[in-house]
Amino acid sequence: MPAKSKDSRPGGRSARVRAAVHRAVVDLVQEAGADKVTIPAVARRAGVNPSSVYRRWGTASALLADVAARRQDEETPELVGDLRQDLERVAVWTLTDLSRPGGVAFFRAEVAPDVDDRKAGLRACLERVSARFRAPLEAAARRGETTPSLERVLDRVVAPLYFRVVFSIPGTDESFARGLVAELCDAVDAGAAGMARGQR
Amino acid sequence: MPAKSKDSRPGGRSARVRAAVHRAVVDLVQEAGADKVTIPAVARRAGVNPSSVYRRWGTASALLADVAARRQDEETPELVGDLRQDLERVAVWTLTDLSRPGGVAFFRAEVAPDVDDRKAGLRACLERVSARFRAPLEAAARRGETTPSLERVLDRVVAPLYFRVVFSIPGTDESFARGLVAELCDAVDAGAAGMARGQR
Repeated sequence: MPAKSKDSRPGGRSARVRAAVHRAVVDLVQEAGADKVTIPAVARRAGVNPSSVYRRWGTASALLADVAARRQDEETPELVGDLRQDLERVAVWTLTDLSRPGGVAFFRAEVAPDVDDRKAGLRACLERVSARFRAPLEAAARRGETTPSLERVLDRVVAPLYFRVVFSIPGTDESFARGLVAELCDAVDAGAAGMARGQR
Repeated sequence: MPAKSKDSRPGGRSARVRAAVHRAVVDLVQEAGADKVTIPAVARRAGVNPSSVYRRWGTASALLADVAARRQDEETPELVGDLRQDLERVAVWTLTDLSRPGGVAFFRAEVAPDVDDRKAGLRACLERVSARFRAPLEAAARRGETTPSLERVLDRVVAPLYFRVVFSIPGTDESFARGLVAELCDAVDAGAAGMARGQR
């Protein structure tokens, strides 16, 4: 079979441009920081025409948000069907994602670009992190288990991880992330046991 | 007594310039966002010479950090001598400070300016919030009470407040802040009671 040009496949060229642009953004954020990412710099690095980048993403903030969205969606851990284990895996994955070079930079990019884009970026960022934790919570609820609310998970697991990574607090590792989940689940179990005693 | 020119008093003119510059920064952040604050814009607004602003603060980030430091230090609540009440008051005060117009903008200014200034700004920001909570914790420890560690307070009270204000999560009010403190103190008290039973 003769080698076909990738450009002739539907989406082939477009997908390659997107991949090259995303890689350029990740590299530039790691080297210079999210605030130094501009569309001309990204286009130069990716070897594509700036006008295609403007046409597709419009602004540097929109581009950063798209890259952040892509990073957050890839490699989400599979559910194993046990609430603690599933929450622990998502918590560890969230920490790993935030901790890798550029991880917080991408979070910051969503928090700190132009005033106009900020609200939409923040909503998207919160929605993505919520979706990741919502999956194991809903699966456990379908199994009839008592679960913490999503808000409790955000307050007790996600908020400390974000805060500690943003402020570089030492000791913020996998076992710390698992500990946050364990403590929350222990409190939920103790509450459920207390309710059961009360109903007897 | 004849009215003396304020400029002849030591520090008088300097203090007035600082106040005018700080007020200009607060106004500009509220109107346009922290990322739009530049030294020339601040000087124009404050009616002072840009060169005095450059000489005194050097960069817009350093100026924003100075304003943020000043805002965080003023009006810290007095200690009443009861750990729960004192932690509640500091928590509510922290939430109020973050929630007023420009409050998170000042936090963001410390998190997101030039890469070079970022680490110092973050350390200063964490140190200030820590100092506010350290005061009631140390006072309670001197009274011989069992207290949570400062890290626990950061994870369980400060992190959720920051996270919720940054992401505009509804229901983040004074009673929510008090609830975070109550829950943490209940856990500490339950732990202390358990230890006491174990020692009997």
